[in-house]
Amino acid sequence: MLKKPATLRDVAEKAQVHPSTASRALNVRTRALVNPATVDRVLGAAERLGYQPNSLARGLKMSKTFTVGMLIPDLTNPLFPPIARGLEDRLSGAGYTVILANTDNDAEKERTVLDAMSQRRVDGLILATARRDYPVLEEIVASGIPVVLINRTADQPTVPSVTGDDHAGVGIAVRHLLDLGHTRIAHVAGPQSVTTGLARYQSFVSWLQGAGIDPDPDLIVFGDSFQEGTGAAACEELLGRGTDFTAIVAANDLIALGCYDVLKARRIAIPGEVSVIGYNDVPFSDKFDPPLTTIRIPHYQIGVKAAELMLDAIDDPATTPVSLRLSPRLVERCSTARPSH
Amino acid sequence: MLKKPATLRDVAEKAQVHPSTASRALNVRTRALVNPATVDRVLGAAERLGYQPNSLARGLKMSKTFTVGMLIPDLTNPLFPPIARGLEDRLSGAGYTVILANTDNDAEKERTVLDAMSQRRVDGLILATARRDYPVLEEIVASGIPVVLINRTADQPTVPSVTGDDHAGVGIAVRHLLDLGHTRIAHVAGPQSVTTGLARYQSFVSWLQGAGIDPDPDLIVFGDSFQEGTGAAACEELLGRGTDFTAIVAANDLIALGCYDVLKARRIAIPGEVSVIGYNDVPFSDKFDPPLTTIRIPHYQIGVKAAELMLDAIDDPATTPVSLRLSPRLVERCSTARPSH
Repeated sequence: MLKKPATLRDVAEKAQVHPSTASRALNVRTRALVNPATVDRVLGAAERLGYQPNSLARGLKMSKTFTVGMLIPDLTNPLFPPIARGLEDRLSGAGYTVILANTDNDAEKERTVLDAMSQRRVDGLILATARRDYPVLEEIVASGIPVVLINRTADQPTVPSVTGDDHAGVGIAVRHLLDLGHTRIAHVAGPQSVTTGLARYQSFVSWLQGAGIDPDPDLIVFGDSFQEGTGAAACEELLGRGTDFTAIVAANDLIALGCYDVLKARRIAIPGEVSVIGYNDVPFSDKFDPPLTTIRIPHYQIGVKAAELMLDAIDDPATTPVSLRLSPRLVERCSTARPSH
Repeated sequence: MLKKPATLRDVAEKAQVHPSTASRALNVRTRALVNPATVDRVLGAAERLGYQPNSLARGLKMSKTFTVGMLIPDLTNPLFPPIARGLEDRLSGAGYTVILANTDNDAEKERTVLDAMSQRRVDGLILATARRDYPVLEEIVASGIPVVLINRTADQPTVPSVTGDDHAGVGIAVRHLLDLGHTRIAHVAGPQSVTTGLARYQSFVSWLQGAGIDPDPDLIVFGDSFQEGTGAAACEELLGRGTDFTAIVAANDLIALGCYDVLKARRIAIPGEVSVIGYNDVPFSDKFDPPLTTIRIPHYQIGVKAAELMLDAIDDPATTPVSLRLSPRLVERCSTARPSH
């Protein structure tokens, strides 16, 4: 019986390294990226197994750039740096460089950036820019370049993704306010064109209903971005409607900060008169005045997990797409309290 | 007399557009990046002037990637997003895409990122990562790729740069505290291996001396990074020395936030017992508790100006290097006040 020839995976397994590390160690052009002891282990394993690199696969490997592109909607949103940090830490450990670009949620700019990245032949794309209706994703998938979505997803097609569990997170926020005794709870929702905006809004409604409270449409305002100014405008609108409320669930922390601005300008005490809860736990949330109670999504872990899905996809393009949903948790600080009446 | 043939610059001038825009409009491969009315104007100008593209110059133009790389030391420092925003806004107006990468102030990582960027043939590099001793800069300059330094500069060689005026900025901070009545003023300095750390420290000493105050070495602590944790450790050290002070000039806002952490943990009132002044005016400085008095550098303008120097350098590699130093100003919030005794 003919023995099946050893594969790159066999070598990697024997050397107890990731296949991408084995690939780099075997390739003279990329060997310097791997630490010398690991190179020795991989070369030893290859020799013992009689490994013959497949020239086609080898050629493909040779054309790799060891660069992964990451598209973010808005660099000034402090949500993204810690995600990028986790991504980079994990990918640079595997010899990859991450290059970032900003799209400003602008379809034309996104197209230009994607063209620039694909001309530069990145080995994969991490997209934090998905919209529910996201035709460009089909093109990327069709082009064969590995792609992983983070934070948000698209309605179609199915590709690997790493997100926080928005339904659970909003549930924790609503439960926290109910436990404090609030029943008149407002929601400043994010844009409904992206999954985070939609899911948080839908979850808000369904958790209130689950608690036997009929959501009051007067207490729900939709923002068209996740930025501070949008939160401020929405909070103005909410107050202008004249319907009483004692708490706000903001669709993210920047929207919560916009609510802070308006409430402070009107001398409405936080949390004395209105409790505010954010979403994400962006850096410096603990430094705000008052320190923001919020739902923490595991940013750094989202980046790390996205990196791992990307390495899997680069390594084996036929790998089954996985959707990872990470659990959020409550970070209770000083912007929520019992209602005063 | 033979008429001198029309150049790209002549066409651009006649069409009243930037030469890079004229170049893109004339090139069928990049024409879509220019708005149609401008394309018409450029093509009309080229025809009227009898413009014949120089094939060598054309070849060079064709090999352009219309991508500029930006290296930043630390994506989680909120100083950089607004600079990147100004850079992008100006460069995307000229048809360029910006790709970013993080170096973590790590020389090896920086080398990998630079290799990745130059393999991708970026048309220019914007470096926010300069150290005073920065040998990689000589290589970049020797390679002929246009480079602009921002925020920090290197001791050698001379290349275009855009920075805030640190000497003036620290002077404003020191003057503000002196005017409030402080004389026991401490400084938590940044790393002395980068120009911003060194210049702010030297300026602190020289402005105090200029006011007739002998700087007390016990009131100066050197941090080895510009991060919050460094500020906290330095503030602990300062307090541990037991020498009285009523105010801290922090080398940047994150260091000031680290001081906040330690002072709050010890229940030392800000600004009641100790005034704290930051540097940079990063986003959300107005949201901190207490809102941070700081020195505002014009982040967005630094990005815009760096973009303009870059466009000049790409357009004419022989252009004389210019160093732009932008003026800072005081943003007085709630972390500084008269000393209590």
